[in-house]
Amino acid sequence: MKNNDEKNYKKAKGGKKMITEPRTLPGFMELLPNEQILFDQMKQKIEETYQRFGFLPLDTPILELSEILLAKAGGETEKQIYRFQKGDTDISMRFDLTVPLAKYVAKNYGNLSFPFRRYQIGKVYRGERAQKGRFREFYQCDIDIIGDGELSIINDAEIPSVIYQLIQELGFQDFTICMNNRKILNGLFEEINQKENATEILRVIDKIEKIGKEAVTQELEKLELTQKSIDAIMNFIAIDGTTDEKLEKLQNLNIQNETFQLGLQELTQVVKYIRMFGVPDTHFKVDLTIARGLDYYTGTVYETFLNDYREIGSVCSGGRYENLAEYYTDKKLPGVGISIGLTRLFYKLNEMGLIKAEKSSMADILVIPMLEDMTKPIQIASELRKNGICTEIYLNDKKLKAKLKYADKLQIPYVMIIGEDEVASNQVKVKNMQTGEETEVALEASKIIEIISK
Amino acid sequence: MKNNDEKNYKKAKGGKKMITEPRTLPGFMELLPNEQILFDQMKQKIEETYQRFGFLPLDTPILELSEILLAKAGGETEKQIYRFQKGDTDISMRFDLTVPLAKYVAKNYGNLSFPFRRYQIGKVYRGERAQKGRFREFYQCDIDIIGDGELSIINDAEIPSVIYQLIQELGFQDFTICMNNRKILNGLFEEINQKENATEILRVIDKIEKIGKEAVTQELEKLELTQKSIDAIMNFIAIDGTTDEKLEKLQNLNIQNETFQLGLQELTQVVKYIRMFGVPDTHFKVDLTIARGLDYYTGTVYETFLNDYREIGSVCSGGRYENLAEYYTDKKLPGVGISIGLTRLFYKLNEMGLIKAEKSSMADILVIPMLEDMTKPIQIASELRKNGICTEIYLNDKKLKAKLKYADKLQIPYVMIIGEDEVASNQVKVKNMQTGEETEVALEASKIIEIISK
Repeated sequence: MKNNDEKNYKKAKGGKKMITEPRTLPGFMELLPNEQILFDQMKQKIEETYQRFGFLPLDTPILELSEILLAKAGGETEKQIYRFQKGDTDISMRFDLTVPLAKYVAKNYGNLSFPFRRYQIGKVYRGERAQKGRFREFYQCDIDIIGDGELSIINDAEIPSVIYQLIQELGFQDFTICMNNRKILNGLFEEINQKENATEILRVIDKIEKIGKEAVTQELEKLELTQKSIDAIMNFIAIDGTTDEKLEKLQNLNIQNETFQLGLQELTQVVKYIRMFGVPDTHFKVDLTIARGLDYYTGTVYETFLNDYREIGSVCSGGRYENLAEYYTDKKLPGVGISIGLTRLFYKLNEMGLIKAEKSSMADILVIPMLEDMTKPIQIASELRKNGICTEIYLNDKKLKAKLKYADKLQIPYVMIIGEDEVASNQVKVKNMQTGEETEVALEASKIIEIISK
Repeated sequence: MKNNDEKNYKKAKGGKKMITEPRTLPGFMELLPNEQILFDQMKQKIEETYQRFGFLPLDTPILELSEILLAKAGGETEKQIYRFQKGDTDISMRFDLTVPLAKYVAKNYGNLSFPFRRYQIGKVYRGERAQKGRFREFYQCDIDIIGDGELSIINDAEIPSVIYQLIQELGFQDFTICMNNRKILNGLFEEINQKENATEILRVIDKIEKIGKEAVTQELEKLELTQKSIDAIMNFIAIDGTTDEKLEKLQNLNIQNETFQLGLQELTQVVKYIRMFGVPDTHFKVDLTIARGLDYYTGTVYETFLNDYREIGSVCSGGRYENLAEYYTDKKLPGVGISIGLTRLFYKLNEMGLIKAEKSSMADILVIPMLEDMTKPIQIASELRKNGICTEIYLNDKKLKAKLKYADKLQIPYVMIIGEDEVASNQVKVKNMQTGEETEVALEASKIIEIISK
């Protein structure tokens, strides 16, 4: 991501040709090859995990009609959106993958099979104020399960099992999937007659991790809640113990409100099934403070934290919603899903040194020809490729030293020099660039593959 | 891509809720799941082929500063570009992957190893007049090899060997990679003193496939060329025979012009090396009428045709350029590359029935639970997934008929119903949905995998 080239640019500018300084827009990630390889590996692991759970790929346009994208949105989202006029058309760049999914499902309702399980990995755009670690173009990696009219609560338990596999695939073992149910929160507010304040209260509760109990109490006082209401809320979010103890304590609160009871029942079900899906108790917990700011979610909600790096924030969040596409169809389409903000996650993990770019090349081996007649080196390279070995052949006319420096800089695992002698003797030395070890074998693709595949 | 849902929308509109019709912008491809799976398979084959040749991934932003994207462009491109103001910033959406590459290489020059071999597969944007088969958002799949100061001609031969592998990977055997060299054309024009008319003449020659010899002669006459010049051009483009005969006839034209001779020498070299790379004479040819409209190319140029479907046009084109990033740096960066317009290619092949969506699901097997206690079905599904089997489990509470219909509609290859009996006997029937064949095995992941993997 560095720009070492400013000197060249300035020198050029003094010359006769008009040179435009090669800049990338602030807030737009652009990686060097070794980082790009690492990023793509993470992206691929996410995609493969989604596929293994039977999610279908989807790729919607980055541009949509503004009336579609803004059918619901307002406030912050609308200010951040990249929106413009082209001819007579009012166009916007998507700011998430959920609104395009809603449009897609409403539009193609008759051609889809439900439950419709789709994943989408793509770039979204938000013209936020530029600051370190904030991106205006970033990847979201989403899965959603959409039901036609209804959707079993078991789906709410399968989703965390995807998260559980996924985070491990990304190389992390110590993490916690935190869950709650919005109906429990909403029921509580109904019970204490604070329904109309729900959004505000949720916003305050959501901050408990950051600001602590006392500050939360103070903020609730500012909302002019009665002491009794505040006590009820604080008792509620103070509930602790194991998952089963928490569920029991929730029951013992003796809140008869129907929404509360429904939420508790759902949460109990999700806990039961999440264990069936093989997620151990060490890796999930009920966290009653989680609300997920958005008023979008109506049931189960998730957040996922790397235990040793809570400061990164939730790496994977989502939840259950009652109606995906209410702005585009009168069909009732309940769903449950999660999203990973991959660009920010990559940036954070990379910055903290928790992931490390190890490859600067896609090649398994570099073939270095040191002779006039290229027949043999090219033939060997072609055969290696046919056998699925990523092979690069150094084709420029340089000294051996320059060629080896190239292999070194790109950290290509194996190198093989083919000169007149090698062709004459039909023997070649394959060098492991990490250990320095050289193995002499017959100059044949099959023999070389044996060494590389060891 | 169909919208069967208009009825619902209209009905909904009459209701109390404000419904926005779910529309996608014209010229923006949005696929149903079975088509999306096919599209992604093609994209993946292209990516894997590029990687096998040791090309590095790159992912540049879709948005760039307008001054960057338009440093060179003008005319048609500028009119088609999606350009807008956000705050004080003049922003454009990329219209190809070459200009962003040029910026990237100029910007990161000091951090890259040359020759820099990169692939990029991404969406680009052109606000063309909407018409059938024309897309405003489409994927380009590019590779380029960029040299620092110089780049061996052998690279011009490796590129067609990538094309040769690639088109076969996509399932086509009968195709021709057509090659020419712009220096041959330019040298010819110098020789007949038509250098200043070169672009115009090239434009006319480029049409010979479409309009025929006579019309080309007439158009050349309109350019006020002498009969001698027209004869020279027509003799030139009439050269036929095998590849080696063509090269010989070109030599025999006895054009002493230096550019012409250099071009002929390059073309001869490329032919020599392309054979070394294992591309058979059946799959490439010298085609002297190919110029690639752009004045961007300076040496070798390529176009690739499916022999039985010439009407699709070139499926993979590109060539050699002298200086990639002259608008952003004074470093000389020669390169050679190709591009596949995947969205249009997919659309055409699909429309012509040359490719066929065969899967509507990513899943290898659907687990259908028909019992209260989900423990066993979920456990089996989890184990299958751990073993890399893409597994879906039907979680909604429906009648068996509805569940089987779902499996059928999605064309999931295998289905397995798990009820009380199966759990009690620890035996299950795995049904091959294509043949209808049922195999009874122990209700264990390893046994089930044996059947699926057959």
